[in-house]
Amino acid sequence: MTSDTYSADLNCDMGESYGAFSLGSDELILPFVTSANIACGFHAGDPAVMKKTVKRAIANGVAMGVHPGLPDLQGFGRREMSVSAEEAYDMVVYQIGALAAFVKSEGGVLNHVKPHGALYNMAAVSKELSSAIAEAVYKVDPGLVLYGLSGSELIAAGIRTGLKVANEVFADRTYQENGSLTSRKFADAMVTDEQIAINRVLRMVKEGKVTSQQGTDIKIIADTICIHGDGKHAVLFAEKIYTAFKNEGIVLQSPA
Amino acid sequence: MTSDTYSADLNCDMGESYGAFSLGSDELILPFVTSANIACGFHAGDPAVMKKTVKRAIANGVAMGVHPGLPDLQGFGRREMSVSAEEAYDMVVYQIGALAAFVKSEGGVLNHVKPHGALYNMAAVSKELSSAIAEAVYKVDPGLVLYGLSGSELIAAGIRTGLKVANEVFADRTYQENGSLTSRKFADAMVTDEQIAINRVLRMVKEGKVTSQQGTDIKIIADTICIHGDGKHAVLFAEKIYTAFKNEGIVLQSPA
Amino acid sequence: MTSDTYSADLNCDMGESYGAFSLGSDELILPFVTSANIACGFHAGDPAVMKKTVKRAIANGVAMGVHPGLPDLQGFGRREMSVSAEEAYDMVVYQIGALAAFVKSEGGVLNHVKPHGALYNMAAVSKELSSAIAEAVYKVDPGLVLYGLSGSELIAAGIRTGLKVANEVFADRTYQENGSLTSRKFADAMVTDEQIAINRVLRMVKEGKVTSQQGTDIKIIADTICIHGDGKHAVLFAEKIYTAFKNEGIVLQSPA
Amino acid sequence: MTSDTYSADLNCDMGESYGAFSLGSDELILPFVTSANIACGFHAGDPAVMKKTVKRAIANGVAMGVHPGLPDLQGFGRREMSVSAEEAYDMVVYQIGALAAFVKSEGGVLNHVKPHGALYNMAAVSKELSSAIAEAVYKVDPGLVLYGLSGSELIAAGIRTGLKVANEVFADRTYQENGSLTSRKFADAMVTDEQIAINRVLRMVKEGKVTSQQGTDIKIIADTICIHGDGKHAVLFAEKIYTAFKNEGIVLQSPA
Repeated sequence: MTSDTYSADLNCDMGESYGAFSLGSDELILPFVTSANIACGFHAGDPAVMKKTVKRAIANGVAMGVHPGLPDLQGFGRREMSVSAEEAYDMVVYQIGALAAFVKSEGGVLNHVKPHGALYNMAAVSKELSSAIAEAVYKVDPGLVLYGLSGSELIAAGIRTGLKVANEVFADRTYQENGSLTSRKFADAMVTDEQIAINRVLRMVKEGKVTSQQGTDIKIIADTICIHGDGKHAVLFAEKIYTAFKNEGIVLQSPA
Repeated sequence: MTSDTYSADLNCDMGESYGAFSLGSDELILPFVTSANIACGFHAGDPAVMKKTVKRAIANGVAMGVHPGLPDLQGFGRREMSVSAEEAYDMVVYQIGALAAFVKSEGGVLNHVKPHGALYNMAAVSKELSSAIAEAVYKVDPGLVLYGLSGSELIAAGIRTGLKVANEVFADRTYQENGSLTSRKFADAMVTDEQIAINRVLRMVKEGKVTSQQGTDIKIIADTICIHGDGKHAVLFAEKIYTAFKNEGIVLQSPA
Repeated sequence: MTSDTYSADLNCDMGESYGAFSLGSDELILPFVTSANIACGFHAGDPAVMKKTVKRAIANGVAMGVHPGLPDLQGFGRREMSVSAEEAYDMVVYQIGALAAFVKSEGGVLNHVKPHGALYNMAAVSKELSSAIAEAVYKVDPGLVLYGLSGSELIAAGIRTGLKVANEVFADRTYQENGSLTSRKFADAMVTDEQIAINRVLRMVKEGKVTSQQGTDIKIIADTICIHGDGKHAVLFAEKIYTAFKNEGIVLQSPA
Repeated sequence: MTSDTYSADLNCDMGESYGAFSLGSDELILPFVTSANIACGFHAGDPAVMKKTVKRAIANGVAMGVHPGLPDLQGFGRREMSVSAEEAYDMVVYQIGALAAFVKSEGGVLNHVKPHGALYNMAAVSKELSSAIAEAVYKVDPGLVLYGLSGSELIAAGIRTGLKVANEVFADRTYQENGSLTSRKFADAMVTDEQIAINRVLRMVKEGKVTSQQGTDIKIIADTICIHGDGKHAVLFAEKIYTAFKNEGIVLQSPA
């Protein structure tokens, strides 16, 4: 197997500004990613920001995805809320539709759905919640790809429901032996050395393996890599990881 | 020309509850209308209410329309806001998409768009705002019908843009000689006698005329009649007007 | 000990309407309660509703309290959110201030604070959260009474902080042997017979005891009794419990 | 009359971040102003931001004021809304209270109220609206100073109501012969040369005069000068104007 047979997607959250509040460096990051997860007004984003972000993604040839969040603008969708499975279903349908209208009116094609923040984390471990989210995606558009934490309940739910899925990995996070991310509560949650982070994620893509914090190699599927979009540093890292992938001959493309 | 060649649409705002806050008598009104304007979360409505309302409309065979409002839940979208034409465009695209996703996921067909409250009133008299709204509708789905105040700027904008339009009239409101509604600031704004209201609206549909407050007969196009949905009295009046139309042999159907 | 030495407070949540959305039967309930917990715009209520509710409470001689909730209007503050202790502190300070301004501008006196819904429930079992809430109350006004679930962490936090507290009991809920409320997940959570409910709460006030679902008598402090305010039935029950207390010679007064 | 008898206040809007959204350069501006207008959660700001801003203002010895805005976070309170006088009253009472609680809990003293954005502009020209705002301030705390556009309806309302007022002028804006600000619709609305701007505002403070766009000198009262807080450039200009005032021997102090 030659290296040019490998492919991966680099995704980044986008369109997270709101009204007069500017957030992220979307324009600077776009050249280095292949898919954009666009906020839909619940945790961030507003109709004007959504339209602008869709236009930018289309102009950069970047695949567009819905980035549905919890209805918590003040908490940026990062605070867990005890929403029912039906409430999760409803809010995902709503947000897919809202973004789909901008994508359609701008002549683009909607590619995927990746839940945001606390909704992503809750769905990763809840069969009930992830089933509701997968069903919402499927009922609005069965052609959409569902992005979720690699090996999580959300991925399982997507497969059960009949959706194409994309297993997401993180370059800057460490993993436990059971495949879960090390909680941010612990000091060793982050990979702070950029080169080590890049080497780890290249190995995930090429070998399907990562070294856990317990020192063992574990299997991991890396269909798409999460690139953080906030801050100047983020742009530099995005460029580094993009360049490393290019140099390794990995085909960068969204899982359409 | 025989009476059975006349047709009209009875429309009512629906899905205006929000979370624990219940508003309107949707289930009681639905049997007496042919199209429902469904709130989309800006002035009223939330994802759960939208889904429920779409299900109910489908079950009753009532045409479904988007009822986009200003982002003012506290003011129920009734307070004018100095939104730009582009902001109006964006918020209409967003709200159409949000409802369209529920309609699609429930297996229905979206029929029309009718702006709500202050957005409706502002669009009626602003060429710029109504052009933006019509363009938003057209770019998301050129097959949607645009409902607007009979003879208003919004109707003109819809026609210019290439949309099918529906001129809306009000049974319980009086008209000025220039075709505008008498402002609610004046004592004679409302038609309080129900039988007179029904006779007036029947004449609008059959003769295309209404007597203005200046005593003259003016021309008016009555494609769709607005039925108010709030309160017990509203249900009784909806039934009365529905029955009167049936008795007159007027075909009740949405302008699909 | 004669019956006239007993006293208790009947409290009810109020001012939970929002804009065009009307909720509750405040005017009908007010004659039968001694303290009102007034929503402050986070889970319900808006500035206009708050002013109106303060005026009504003053007119009825009912003690006024702040009823701070989570920032979740759509979920009516009933969905648990993983807010930090500092976030809870901040939102309680904010909401106390907002209501205090209406109370002051209407010439009234603020009496107490009772957290709402999920914030109440979370505070009942979290030492950290309840400490933050108690500190917020104390720092804004150390003279305010803190209402919390009888025997809960919130009561303990209030006492530690130096606040006067009011242990709240529920006439229509059953209790476990450890003093906690039976979860609503279980069939026996509610006391459905009104007379039994009234007898139970009278015993709580006079004997400081209630029979748990395990059949044992447990100690319970009943400084204030929660009266539900939503629905016609609620008004009738409020009147019944009010009358029963009067007939027993229990002094009805707020724990000022 | 010697120069040391002149005094003026430099005020700046602050605390306009929201959740994860950061806005303004509060910490950098604070050393150069004497009063801070703190957002209260309607157009910007949230409870956490308010507390942090109050702490910072106290640490810098800067007078704290309420900066109430319209309930339009998405539009940053800059879009006019047709709120009634009573709605304006209610929202001002609410926002004063919310901030007052943070000021009190942090051991500070509340100094003033300055409406924000569209509410400021609407109040400047509406007797009814400005009367309602002045009454709201007075009823919550008659000791608060009301800041408004120099010579506007809001200043007149404050005086009528019995409040101490502060006439606000703008260094970077031009004036019409009738004393109003030149509308931003016109090319000559702004004073772009910083030195000219500083000279103009010094003359306003010392002579009570400014040259109108019609070339005539008009009278103007300059109790407080508005310093813009957004952007790096803003900080530099704040320092320049602060230094110029110091060099001229003008006493910088808030109108407490």
